[in-house]
Amino acid sequence: MGGFFTGRSLADLGRDLRSGDTTAAELLAHAFASIDAEENSGENTGEKPKLNAFVTLDREGAEAAAKQADNELGSGVDRGPLHGVPVAVKDIIDVAGLPTGMGSAHFTGHVAGKDAACVTMLRDAGAVIVGKTGTHEFAYGGSGDVSVNGPVRNPHDRERMSGGSSSGSAVAVAAGMVPLALGTDTGGSVRIPAAFCGITGFKPPYGVIPTDGVFPLSPSLDHVGFLAASADDCRIAYHALAGPAEAVSLPVGDTPRVAWIEPESADPDVVRTVRALFSDAPAEPLDLFELRRVFRAIQDCEAYDIHADRVAAAPELYQPPTLERLEQAAPTPGWRYLRAFRERGEFARHVAGLLERYDLLALPTMMMTAPKIGELEGAFGRHAPALVALTCAWNVLGLPALSFPAGTVGGLPVGAQIITRRGAESLLFDTAARLTG
Amino acid sequence: MGGFFTGRSLADLGRDLRSGDTTAAELLAHAFASIDAEENSGENTGEKPKLNAFVTLDREGAEAAAKQADNELGSGVDRGPLHGVPVAVKDIIDVAGLPTGMGSAHFTGHVAGKDAACVTMLRDAGAVIVGKTGTHEFAYGGSGDVSVNGPVRNPHDRERMSGGSSSGSAVAVAAGMVPLALGTDTGGSVRIPAAFCGITGFKPPYGVIPTDGVFPLSPSLDHVGFLAASADDCRIAYHALAGPAEAVSLPVGDTPRVAWIEPESADPDVVRTVRALFSDAPAEPLDLFELRRVFRAIQDCEAYDIHADRVAAAPELYQPPTLERLEQAAPTPGWRYLRAFRERGEFARHVAGLLERYDLLALPTMMMTAPKIGELEGAFGRHAPALVALTCAWNVLGLPALSFPAGTVGGLPVGAQIITRRGAESLLFDTAARLTG
Repeated sequence: MGGFFTGRSLADLGRDLRSGDTTAAELLAHAFASIDAEENSGENTGEKPKLNAFVTLDREGAEAAAKQADNELGSGVDRGPLHGVPVAVKDIIDVAGLPTGMGSAHFTGHVAGKDAACVTMLRDAGAVIVGKTGTHEFAYGGSGDVSVNGPVRNPHDRERMSGGSSSGSAVAVAAGMVPLALGTDTGGSVRIPAAFCGITGFKPPYGVIPTDGVFPLSPSLDHVGFLAASADDCRIAYHALAGPAEAVSLPVGDTPRVAWIEPESADPDVVRTVRALFSDAPAEPLDLFELRRVFRAIQDCEAYDIHADRVAAAPELYQPPTLERLEQAAPTPGWRYLRAFRERGEFARHVAGLLERYDLLALPTMMMTAPKIGELEGAFGRHAPALVALTCAWNVLGLPALSFPAGTVGGLPVGAQIITRRGAESLLFDTAARLTG
Repeated sequence: MGGFFTGRSLADLGRDLRSGDTTAAELLAHAFASIDAEENSGENTGEKPKLNAFVTLDREGAEAAAKQADNELGSGVDRGPLHGVPVAVKDIIDVAGLPTGMGSAHFTGHVAGKDAACVTMLRDAGAVIVGKTGTHEFAYGGSGDVSVNGPVRNPHDRERMSGGSSSGSAVAVAAGMVPLALGTDTGGSVRIPAAFCGITGFKPPYGVIPTDGVFPLSPSLDHVGFLAASADDCRIAYHALAGPAEAVSLPVGDTPRVAWIEPESADPDVVRTVRALFSDAPAEPLDLFELRRVFRAIQDCEAYDIHADRVAAAPELYQPPTLERLEQAAPTPGWRYLRAFRERGEFARHVAGLLERYDLLALPTMMMTAPKIGELEGAFGRHAPALVALTCAWNVLGLPALSFPAGTVGGLPVGAQIITRRGAESLLFDTAARLTG
C-alpha cells in the first residue's frame, strides 16, 4: 500500500501542476515508479504475490501524452482538472494501438484500432493514459480472480480477492499507482472492487458515458464508471467527461432525506458499519432478491448472445468458471427476458415513488468483506450471485450509484452505497464527502 | 357459396348507396340474411356442416349504425367509400360491448370495454360492424380448425380447413356474407385464409394500422390487415383507414420489375399456377427457411411471454394443440431472440437491396391448397410450420404483402403473393388488379 498517489487528491495534483510544483511528466514518472515497485520488483518474487493490477503499460504513449500536456499547460492551454493526470483504463475498453485482452485467451494478441468513446473523452480532457488494468474475464464476474492474466489481489490482504470485474482499476487506485481509473459496471463491477479495496466507485446513470468501444457484457445494463480515492475525485472525473449533468442541487445546509434499504442475509458486522452512517434513516422495503432475478434474466440472455459463437467455436479458450457461467446462461428462456423488462418497469415505478419521498437510498455495497481467493466456491456458491446482490438493482434501474469507504470489519474495507435520481448525482458526491470528510 | 355480396364490389355498393338504389339498412339486412341462410338455417343440420364464420352477431348495434349511416348520407354527411358498408371483425379485436372470445375458453364471457383503434377507424369511416368472426385460438395457428368455437370450414370444400388464423373473416367474405372484414396477420394469418378461400388478403407495412385493442400474439410481428374479394376493395379499405400512405407510384403504362422467389418443397402444381402469372420474372434467391427460423424465435418468445401466466394458472382451458405449441415455445432461449433481431437486420438489408433492383417480389402464398381438417398432423407435421413458410418472412421484415387469387388446383383456390417496399402499396393493388382483371 501507499504508492505516490495515496493521499493526493485530483485537486492537489491540479494545483501542483498549475503552480509549477510538478509536471505531467513527473506525475507519470511517479505512476510508473509506483507500479514498478509493486508489480515488477524482484524483491516481491517468492515473498508475496504481486497485486497484478496492470496487464499492459504504455510507457512510450504515456510519455508523449504527458509531454504534450506539459507543453499545452506551458502555452496556456488548460484542458481542465484531468489535464496531465495519469489514468488507468480497464482492459475491456479499447485504447488505440494497445492490446484489449478482456482477460481472456480469446483475445490474445488483439490490438485495438481506435479509442473507445470514453477514452477519447479522457484524452480530450488532457488525461495521460498509463496502461490497461486487469479484468475478470470478459467482465463476467465480480470476484476478479478469473482471468487469463491470473487473479488481481487485494492490497489489504493479498490472499483475498480484489473484487471485480474492474479489478485492476480498483487496485491501481487503492495502491496509489494512479489517482483515477476507468472501469465498467454491469452488475456492480465498479462498486464491488471499490468496496473490497477501500476506495470510491461511481456508476453514472445509464447512457451518460457512451459504451462505444467497450466490449459488451449485457448492453442493457453496461455502464462505464470511475474509480478514485474519494467521492470528490469521482465528481471531478465525471464532470470532466460528462459535463455538470446534474439537475438537482439542494440548498446548502439542507440534509438529504435518506431511506435505508435493509439487505437480507448480509454479514451483520458489515451492515452495522454502514447503518451507523445512516442511523436516522427510516427503513423502506425493496425486494432486492426479485430485482436480482430481473438482472439475471437480462444479463444471461444478452451475455450469451454475445458469446454464443465463441462458445461454439473454441470453448476451451475460456477460463472454466466463465464457460460454466455461459453454459448456465444459455438456456434462459426468451419469454423470461421479455418478462424481465416488464418487471423492470414495475420496479422503476416503485423506486421512482421512493425517490420522490427520499433523496437518497442507502445500503451496504457488499454483503461481506473481501473473501479469500477461491473461497466463493464454498461460502457463497460457485457463481457468486451474492457478489452482485446489493449492486445489480441499480444497473437494472439505470440509477446513479456510488460506493464509498464506510470503515472496516476485521481490518478489511467496507463500502457504503448510495443511490439517487438520475440528474441528482451531486447529492451522491456531496453526501459521501460529508460522511467521510 | 354465393351470398349477397358475391360479385358486388365496394365501388358498386358505394354507387348504389349514393344513387338511392339501396340503403345501409338494406345492405345490412342482406348481410344478416346471407349469414343466417348459411349459419343458422335448419336445412343445413345433419346434411352439411356449417361454415362457422361468425362467433357473435350484433344485430341491434349494427342496425343502429346502419340507420345512422343512412341518416348521415341523407343529410349530406359522406364518410367515404366504407360509409354504410357491413364489415366483420376478427374475434381477437375488441369491439366495445361485444364479447372478445379469442377462440379460447380462457375468455368465455369476456366483454370488451372499448373499441380497438382499428375499429374506431372503421366507425369513423362510416362502416357498419355486423359481428365477430371465428379465429384460430389466440390467433396462434394457421389452420383455423383449433378454437373453442370449433373449426371454420372452407366454402370450397367443407371438409377442408379455411386457413387461419383470420378464418372467419376470410370465410365471411368468401361466402359473400360481407364485402370486407378485418383480420390480423402475425405470420400470414390474413394471407393464408385468403389464399385457401380464394379471396384477397392484404397485410399493410408494420405499424401503419395500430394494434391497440387487438389481443397480442407477438407484438414485433403483429399486423392488422384486410380481407376482401379483390385487391381494389383492399385498396379502398386500406385508404379509408390509413389514408393514401403510398410514396411511390409508377408512371401509367410502365410495368413493374418483378423478381420471382422460388419456394422449396411446395406443391409443384401450386407453384406452376402462380409462376404462370410472372413467367418473365427472373428468379432471385432468398433463404425463406432461415427467415422462418428468425420468425419462430421471435414469435416463440413473445407469445409465451404473453401466455405464461395463463399456462401456469389454467392450462386445461387451452385447446390441446395450442397448449402444445406454447409448451414447445417456452424454452426458446433469450439469446436466440436477440440473435433473431440481428439476423432480421441482415435480411432487411438484403431484401432492401433486392427492392432497389425490383419493384415487386412474387411467390405463392401457400405451399399447398387447403388440406383437410386435421390432415396437417400427418402431411405437414403437427405444428404446421409449412403453413407460414412463404408468408412469415414479410412479417419479420414488416413489408406490405398481398395475396390474391391466381387460379385453382384440383378445384381449390391458389393464392399469389406479392411484396413491395414500404410506401409502395399501390403497386400491389395495381398489379393484382391488372393480373386478375
